[in-house]
Amino acid sequence: MKLERKMHFSKDGKRYHLRDQKIMPKADTFLWNNSVLAHVTAMGFSQTQFMQPEPTMYSHAPQKSEKAAMAPEPQYFDHHPGRFFYLKNHDTQSIFSAPSMPMNMELDVYDFEPGLSDVRWTAEKDGMEVVIQFALPYGDDVVELWKVTVRNKKDEPQKVSLYPYFPVGFPSWMNTEGHYDDELGGMLAYALTPYRKLKDYDKVKQMKDYVYFIAHVKPVTWEANSAKFEGYGGLRNPDGIRHEGLSCTEASYETTICAMEHVLELSPYESKTIYFIFGPANNRDEVLTMKNKYLYPNAINDAVEQFNNLYEENKGCIQIQTPDETVNNFINHWIIKQIVYHAKTLRMVTDPQTRNHIQDTMAMTYLDPGHVKDLYKLALSQQSINGEMPDGILLTEDAELKYVNQVPHRDHCVWAAFAIGAYLDETNDVGFLDEKVPYADDETPETVYKHVCKGIEWLILDRSERGLSYIGQGDWNDPMNMVGYKGRGESVWLSQATVYAMKVWLPICQFFKDHKRVRTFESIVQSMNDTLNHVAWDGCWYARGFNDDGEAFGVSTDDEGQIFLNTQSFGILCGAASGERLDLLVNAVEERLTTPYGVTLLAPSYTYMHEKIGRVTQKHPSTAENGSIYCHANAFYTYALYEKGYGQKAYDILRTLIPGPDEHDMKQREHLPLYIPNYYRGAHNERVIGKSSHLMNTGSLPWIYRCFVEGLFGLKGKKNGLKIEPQLPKAFKDVSLTRVFRGKTLNIDMHQKEGMKVTEIILNGNKVAGNMVTMEAMKVNNDIIVNCPLTK
Amino acid sequence: MKLERKMHFSKDGKRYHLRDQKIMPKADTFLWNNSVLAHVTAMGFSQTQFMQPEPTMYSHAPQKSEKAAMAPEPQYFDHHPGRFFYLKNHDTQSIFSAPSMPMNMELDVYDFEPGLSDVRWTAEKDGMEVVIQFALPYGDDVVELWKVTVRNKKDEPQKVSLYPYFPVGFPSWMNTEGHYDDELGGMLAYALTPYRKLKDYDKVKQMKDYVYFIAHVKPVTWEANSAKFEGYGGLRNPDGIRHEGLSCTEASYETTICAMEHVLELSPYESKTIYFIFGPANNRDEVLTMKNKYLYPNAINDAVEQFNNLYEENKGCIQIQTPDETVNNFINHWIIKQIVYHAKTLRMVTDPQTRNHIQDTMAMTYLDPGHVKDLYKLALSQQSINGEMPDGILLTEDAELKYVNQVPHRDHCVWAAFAIGAYLDETNDVGFLDEKVPYADDETPETVYKHVCKGIEWLILDRSERGLSYIGQGDWNDPMNMVGYKGRGESVWLSQATVYAMKVWLPICQFFKDHKRVRTFESIVQSMNDTLNHVAWDGCWYARGFNDDGEAFGVSTDDEGQIFLNTQSFGILCGAASGERLDLLVNAVEERLTTPYGVTLLAPSYTYMHEKIGRVTQKHPSTAENGSIYCHANAFYTYALYEKGYGQKAYDILRTLIPGPDEHDMKQREHLPLYIPNYYRGAHNERVIGKSSHLMNTGSLPWIYRCFVEGLFGLKGKKNGLKIEPQLPKAFKDVSLTRVFRGKTLNIDMHQKEGMKVTEIILNGNKVAGNMVTMEAMKVNNDIIVNCPLTK
Repeated sequence: MKLERKMHFSKDGKRYHLRDQKIMPKADTFLWNNSVLAHVTAMGFSQTQFMQPEPTMYSHAPQKSEKAAMAPEPQYFDHHPGRFFYLKNHDTQSIFSAPSMPMNMELDVYDFEPGLSDVRWTAEKDGMEVVIQFALPYGDDVVELWKVTVRNKKDEPQKVSLYPYFPVGFPSWMNTEGHYDDELGGMLAYALTPYRKLKDYDKVKQMKDYVYFIAHVKPVTWEANSAKFEGYGGLRNPDGIRHEGLSCTEASYETTICAMEHVLELSPYESKTIYFIFGPANNRDEVLTMKNKYLYPNAINDAVEQFNNLYEENKGCIQIQTPDETVNNFINHWIIKQIVYHAKTLRMVTDPQTRNHIQDTMAMTYLDPGHVKDLYKLALSQQSINGEMPDGILLTEDAELKYVNQVPHRDHCVWAAFAIGAYLDETNDVGFLDEKVPYADDETPETVYKHVCKGIEWLILDRSERGLSYIGQGDWNDPMNMVGYKGRGESVWLSQATVYAMKVWLPICQFFKDHKRVRTFESIVQSMNDTLNHVAWDGCWYARGFNDDGEAFGVSTDDEGQIFLNTQSFGILCGAASGERLDLLVNAVEERLTTPYGVTLLAPSYTYMHEKIGRVTQKHPSTAENGSIYCHANAFYTYALYEKGYGQKAYDILRTLIPGPDEHDMKQREHLPLYIPNYYRGAHNERVIGKSSHLMNTGSLPWIYRCFVEGLFGLKGKKNGLKIEPQLPKAFKDVSLTRVFRGKTLNIDMHQKEGMKVTEIILNGNKVAGNMVTMEAMKVNNDIIVNCPLTK
Repeated sequence: MKLERKMHFSKDGKRYHLRDQKIMPKADTFLWNNSVLAHVTAMGFSQTQFMQPEPTMYSHAPQKSEKAAMAPEPQYFDHHPGRFFYLKNHDTQSIFSAPSMPMNMELDVYDFEPGLSDVRWTAEKDGMEVVIQFALPYGDDVVELWKVTVRNKKDEPQKVSLYPYFPVGFPSWMNTEGHYDDELGGMLAYALTPYRKLKDYDKVKQMKDYVYFIAHVKPVTWEANSAKFEGYGGLRNPDGIRHEGLSCTEASYETTICAMEHVLELSPYESKTIYFIFGPANNRDEVLTMKNKYLYPNAINDAVEQFNNLYEENKGCIQIQTPDETVNNFINHWIIKQIVYHAKTLRMVTDPQTRNHIQDTMAMTYLDPGHVKDLYKLALSQQSINGEMPDGILLTEDAELKYVNQVPHRDHCVWAAFAIGAYLDETNDVGFLDEKVPYADDETPETVYKHVCKGIEWLILDRSERGLSYIGQGDWNDPMNMVGYKGRGESVWLSQATVYAMKVWLPICQFFKDHKRVRTFESIVQSMNDTLNHVAWDGCWYARGFNDDGEAFGVSTDDEGQIFLNTQSFGILCGAASGERLDLLVNAVEERLTTPYGVTLLAPSYTYMHEKIGRVTQKHPSTAENGSIYCHANAFYTYALYEKGYGQKAYDILRTLIPGPDEHDMKQREHLPLYIPNYYRGAHNERVIGKSSHLMNTGSLPWIYRCFVEGLFGLKGKKNGLKIEPQLPKAFKDVSLTRVFRGKTLNIDMHQKEGMKVTEIILNGNKVAGNMVTMEAMKVNNDIIVNCPLTK
């Protein structure tokens, strides 16, 4: 154990190993299918939500908890929902729990092994090994598949009891109960969704209020009653396990658990495996259906295979081999998983924010461009005829705008231009622009092109006299709700994003020979950028906005929130920043916002309420929008840097978003390089800087993926073909990759070569003039050599 | 220890002792002031809510919990909020926690000692004794006062560290944090009330979002960071305490605790005391104010004294000496506390259900009749001009009808008649009836008398063609929401209650010579009772109602819910049941509803959804309205039995509502005889029958108190004086009591005497003719001897 590395990827990069219980207990991963999102930690804590249609949990702490979806920075405690397995040796009466909690004893072997499509743990103590595997089935079914193998590692027989402990909690003040159901051969719990109003009854009837936990072999004893299980020892040392056999007591309006005892007599080195299913159901028949469908030995392997196939089929437009194993694995496998999860589930809500809906879809452009069109059309069909996009996209008939979507935000019209622009770059599928979509308030369909134009035109109208965008109760920064709520405050960021949207859209207007729009947009781009540089340039960077009293904020004279990242990123993208301004701005970001864990969203973080800025200033300093290392904003910024040729600087930041392999870095973040979290903690508190939010939902994915494809590897689609303009970081002297592009496969080797002045491209043995490889020049399979000058 | 009784009252009856940790861990008590309700258990768990103006908690589990007030049957777990004290011996490094949780080790001495106005625990292990005392200040302030005395019980010096652990939790996803504030000399935490909408900001600004915990001496080390405190050992064995000194780490958007270390060097037999305050505040200045006001050694004694005085001043219209010590203490002290809590706080909500508002006030009639009038007038001022009472009474300007009060119930007009009728019996204050009150929808004030008449007349109109009351979406039984939601279903109970309201009100109509109403009410009473006996009598008892399809339920042919208690109680009270019907009905209750722990509300409990009855059938069987031993309903029934002279039967039930002193009874209920809980579990599950709901809110108090005063002791106010008609149970051969009545004091001895045929009353030495002691005959102080025939 001591000789092995404590944490590392498996050879194929599709699994990770964390072999130390104490080094990063919050390390985590997630699994998903079309209906379920399971968040799982190294210690065995787990939160699983499913859609019915709103996000619902079925395994709870012994307390009614707030109805909410996954939140950042989950806080763990002994009774936090988890999936635990106690083991008792009958001879010695010694007990331990796997994977680690609830007993949290030091194990002889510990390995947390999240895979792309499953989660595995190995725990061994005193010659008894437990291997736990967890997966979700592919598709729509809501059921957890568990497989536990207990192995006797001694050369003498051992008799052990295995006790899985799966909590149900006490979620309903109307009725929470559980018992062993002999006919089912497993535990059946029931927790009626609490309601008071008659009109809610029909909804409640549809709820999956039963919870089942069934093993493929019948248990010897069982326990549904939490208090009986824990006794005086609690979860750390349960009386129920100290005793001979569980008490077989139902839970009758009491905290409910699904615990069982399986007695295993193991010859020397023998192992035995038990399969379990755990999940919610609307009725007993549904439980039986799930049991028949999933309680067989190969179920978990089948599920893993199906998910692996899904990722293989969507493996993205690049597969890379660089000197950085972590980056290779992340780009080749793990970001793929995260992108597919986002695009297929839209974060498991029924009303994704419009901004999220579009960007979560946008990343699929590089995996399966066919997937994005219907989702964009769905969004545009909810646009108003006046061009305004709603705050959220309703995915189901019963869906309503909830939570943050009840607060009006002004930025929702910019995203379609960015996303559809990117789609056209990658596919050149101009036909999509002619497809027709109705409006929310007008059934007459118009083309996708027109919809996007109308969105931009709504933004153009929604500006102040001097031509900056109104911010109202917020833009990208949701909780920045008091800058402009009186109707006068302006968003510099939204102004820049509006200009950038026009710049992205202008070539398309030109393609459509929409001369009037071209002229209008060009003139507004020019005048807005002039205004931005005139009023919003603070000397070394762009201000964030102007409040209802016309006062700038996000400027050097502020006591807090002096500089914001997004107005620098979009200051670059919109073209306002050039020449000296560009250098000044990049330096300011480096000096004031950059940390070893990424770039903070603003600095210094707000520490008290600023009533002319709003709710964002009340969030804990350096969390979320109040100055965290918000990955979405980092991705914007690196994308902007690549646009301007700051390749090394861009990569230095991009790389910080992916943890490790440095141990200190991993420990500080407490995050494995398996997904991009929503944010890392910002700079306010040194003790917790860099800590992961452990929230797998993030808008950063399309921008990060683009940064690799179009920025770092410089393989950007153009009308006629692929432009090749790499910006390799110094550390990547030689890389090889495969790029799939409009049906062609390009096997590319890139080399930084001493003495090269300009990049040289050799396509199938022939040197290409310039940096464009046209579609005509490509065969189905191509070998490309790219020789670049050394990166400085 | 083994020689002492495990549980008993103190000599003065004002404190209880539970000297065993394991026998009833859920044993509990509550403290209150005008703004705070603190629920405290034997093991140290605690939930404290305060009003701002809605009920709010400030000490949480490490999880966002549902926003809700106190609920029945709280479920405990290691991280459930509590107030805990760890002790470490510096020499031996041994650790234990007091009062019992979180370590839950076996102690040498354990004593849970709830008092009327404080809570105390004694815990001793290995020669170190900890005495913990907790109280709330009298009045409106929201602060917990704690006093901890550590005593060295050995004849050698000992050095110990005392670590109080007061959790804050992780209540806010916007900002949860905590640290030691040097200037305050204590812990200061902050948990911003989460909000999203701009319009909520002004409300949030008013919230007490700070939490402070300050000792009167500065701690040596401290901890705000839950994870640092617990480490790998968890609350059961915290790393923080194993180490030398706490880590002095802030909580920065992390689960927050207030923990401190005080090092105490104690000579042989020496003790040292530390005082703490814990509570929420709106800002730092408020913390300082509270510190100055309450952090002094005598604060807790002052608070206890003020509350004791309050109970002394409101000690009720009887003080009794019977052979049953438990009953004496309960009636003389503990029900007084519970009544005053109800009447002064109205259950700590801003919109008490109208039914609760009136009955919680009604009990004060016997303690301080002056208190009730304004509260009744407040309720009547929210009545509609058409007579209809609202579902809840709004106590503050911002209050809204919430939760169950958004469901319309049909019974709210009956309660004022009962309550004001009782007030007149006790006080003969007929002037109150002439006081004028406006309507919610008509400012022209009318007399209290008219208001009550209009309420009854609304009930008279709200009846079916055959003259039974419509039930709509529920009556007293809130969740019986599908019997009549289509507009046709009828409530037998509400019909009976309407008749009873008229019967109570008729003498008052007669007093006002309101002949027309007298005639109308008399005729309706007669016709409704005839109808009830004709259509609702099921053979041995009254049905509960008729659903929208005209089918009776609560009848012997039903598979579940065959018989309901309330239609029997009110079947008696309304006068419908007489003669053979009365006997049959009483027998049916005895046979079908009576348990050793009280009478169940219905039987058998529903075990599946009955769509023609409603939500009540979905509640867990034998909890709450679905067949629990609902104390309110027990009180109605015993009151009805006393009305009809079933004194012994009435007392047998009444006595079951007060636990103990039998140990088996106490263990099964897990309830101390310190307050009447909302319910005890009904008969569905033998394992949990009789378990207390541990909810201190109940409508039963006025009826129970009346049962003692007017029923058992038979001391009922009449227009001209006091009628004396005791119904002593067999066990009460000789009792003495003091009755305060309309300014007079009556010292009464009652005796059951062999050979007596009729009750004999001797007032100040003179035999009274009949059973009335008129006001004229009374002096200021009176001695009365009552000799009764033996009870059979």
